[in-house]
Amino acid sequence: MGEIRLYEREEIERVIRLDTHVIHEIETAFSDLTTRNVTMPPIMRIDVPEHNGEVDIKSAYIEGKDSFAIKLSSGFFNNPDLGLPSANGMMILLSSITGEPKTIFADNGLLTDLRTAAAGAVAARALSRENSRTVGIIGTGSQARYQLEALVNVRSIEVVYVYGRSAEKSSTYQRDIENRLGLKVEIKNSIEEVVRSSDIVITTTPSTEPIIKSEWLHEGLHITAMGSDAEHKQELEAAVLEQADLFVCDVKEQSLRLGELRSCTNQEIRDSALELGEITSWKKNGRANNQQITVCDLTGTGVQDTAIARYVNQLMEKIGGR
Amino acid sequence: MGEIRLYEREEIERVIRLDTHVIHEIETAFSDLTTRNVTMPPIMRIDVPEHNGEVDIKSAYIEGKDSFAIKLSSGFFNNPDLGLPSANGMMILLSSITGEPKTIFADNGLLTDLRTAAAGAVAARALSRENSRTVGIIGTGSQARYQLEALVNVRSIEVVYVYGRSAEKSSTYQRDIENRLGLKVEIKNSIEEVVRSSDIVITTTPSTEPIIKSEWLHEGLHITAMGSDAEHKQELEAAVLEQADLFVCDVKEQSLRLGELRSCTNQEIRDSALELGEITSWKKNGRANNQQITVCDLTGTGVQDTAIARYVNQLMEKIGGR
Repeated sequence: MGEIRLYEREEIERVIRLDTHVIHEIETAFSDLTTRNVTMPPIMRIDVPEHNGEVDIKSAYIEGKDSFAIKLSSGFFNNPDLGLPSANGMMILLSSITGEPKTIFADNGLLTDLRTAAAGAVAARALSRENSRTVGIIGTGSQARYQLEALVNVRSIEVVYVYGRSAEKSSTYQRDIENRLGLKVEIKNSIEEVVRSSDIVITTTPSTEPIIKSEWLHEGLHITAMGSDAEHKQELEAAVLEQADLFVCDVKEQSLRLGELRSCTNQEIRDSALELGEITSWKKNGRANNQQITVCDLTGTGVQDTAIARYVNQLMEKIGGR
Repeated sequence: MGEIRLYEREEIERVIRLDTHVIHEIETAFSDLTTRNVTMPPIMRIDVPEHNGEVDIKSAYIEGKDSFAIKLSSGFFNNPDLGLPSANGMMILLSSITGEPKTIFADNGLLTDLRTAAAGAVAARALSRENSRTVGIIGTGSQARYQLEALVNVRSIEVVYVYGRSAEKSSTYQRDIENRLGLKVEIKNSIEEVVRSSDIVITTTPSTEPIIKSEWLHEGLHITAMGSDAEHKQELEAAVLEQADLFVCDVKEQSLRLGELRSCTNQEIRDSALELGEITSWKKNGRANNQQITVCDLTGTGVQDTAIARYVNQLMEKIGGR
C-alpha cells in the first residue's frame, strides 16, 4: 500500500474554486447517475444521543471510474455551546481497482458545501431562463453565499434580492456579497417580495414548514430548493410543485423520502418528476421556453461527493501534492 | 478542528504488542456490550463488482467513552494477480463529544488482526481449562499466528499441534512459531488428530463446510471458531454445538446470521447460547469444571474496533505522537 495523503481544509481551500470546472464535474456526475451503473448504498448513521450527535456515512461508486469516495459527515448539536461548529466531516478517496485508500480530505465539510452549490448551478443552467438577471436568495448562511458564487458562472446575474430572518445577518450578507462578487444586493422584507422580483429563486433554509407559496410564482421563474434533506424539512408548498411546468429533483427516491416530493401527494406530479441527470445527459428536455415555471429539488447525493473528491485529488496531483 | 493525526501501519506496529493490556481492553469491550448502551449500526457495504471488490464499513459507539471508531475494510479479490494483498483497511477515531475526527490509523488491517486474536484469548480465558497445556491450530495463515501469540498470555501452552492443507505452509508455520514464541510445534496429518490431541482448538479457516466433527470432541476440550464471518462460511458441524456443554458467541444476532449458529437449527441451543460479554462481565458463569466441553464462535464486532483504536491512540499519545 502506498502512503496515504492527508489534506486539511486550508490546503484544499487554497486549490479549489467554485468555477466552471467544478460545476462541469458535478454536472457529469448527475449524468452518470442516469447513464452509468452506480452503486450508492443507503446512508449509514451512527447516533451518539449522549452528546446530541450523529455521524452519517455516504458513498457512491460510479462504474468505470478508477476511484470513489466515502464521506463521513457529523452533526453534534451541543458544539456551539463549546464554541465549535456543529458540522464536521471528511472524505476518503479509495482506488476502485484495488480498494486501497489513497487520499483523505479532512475538509471539515468544505467539499460538501462546494458540491451542493455546484449542483445549484447545474440546476440553474439546465432549467432557468438563459436571460435571467435577478436572483432571490432565501437564507443568509454559508450555502446562501456558495450558491450565488456558483450561479454567477452560468447566468449573468445583475441584482441579488435576499431575505433572512435576522436583519443583522442580512446586512452582513449584503456587505459580503457586494465586496466579494461585486453584485448589487437588495435586502427584502418578505419572502414574497423576493420571489415576485426574481428570475431565479434559491432557498437555502433548514425550514420544517413551507416558506414559498404557489400564488407568488410568475412566468419564467425558476426555483431551486436545496434546504430539505431530511424527513422533517420542507421549503415549498405542495402546490408549488403542481403549478410548475417542470419539476426536477436530483434522485427521485430521495426527494420522495427526504425532499419536496414527500409532501406532494399528487400522483401525477410524482410520476412526471424528472431527475436532473436525465436533462444533463440529454435524455429529457429541460426548460422549453421563457414562460415556463421550473422547480428543482436537491437533497444531495453520493455521486457528487465522489465527483468532487476525484476532482480535487486531480488538482492536488497537478500541483504536486505537498 | 485540531489537526488530524495519520499513522501508517509501520508506526502502529512499532508501539502495539499482543499483550495482556490489549487482551484486557478487548475483554472490557465485550463486557461493555452487555453492561453499557452501545450503538452498533448494521454494516454498510459498497460493492465494486467490476473489480471483484467490496468495502465494508463498521462502527460502534460505547456510551460513556469519549471517542469511537469507524472502520473501513475492503476485499478486492483480483489484487493477488497484481501482487497485492486482497485485504485493506483503515480506522478513523472520532470524538464522541464533538464528532471531530481525531486520528486515522492507516493500519491496513493490522488492528483488526490484533483485536480478533485478542478476542480469542478472551474466549480462552473465560472458557478453556486453566490447566490447558496443548493447543491445536487449524489453518496456517496470519490469524493462526496471531491467535497463538495472544493465547500464550492467558494459558501456559507447552505444545502446539497444527494442521494446514499445504505441507509447505505448515512447515513455515512450524518454523515461525518455534522461532518467535519458543513453543514446540507438531504438524498433524488430519484435523481429527489435532482435535483429539488438544486441550484447546482454534479454527482460523475461510471454510464453507464443517471441518470439525462432533465425534472427535473429548472431555475438557475448548474450541474457538473464528473463521466464519459470512453467510456462506462454516467451520463446525451443527452437532458440535449440540454436544458442547456451553456454547458462547460474541454477538448472538451475528452468529445466527454469519456464524456457527446459522447452521444449528436446534432451538434449544439457539436459546441457551450465551454472549461472551455475559461471562466476562460476571453476569453468567463460564466453564464450571474440567470435564465440560465449551465452544466459542467469534464473528467480529465493532466494539472491538473501537476498543483497539482507542487503546492504540492512548499508546501514541503516551509516546508523544510523532
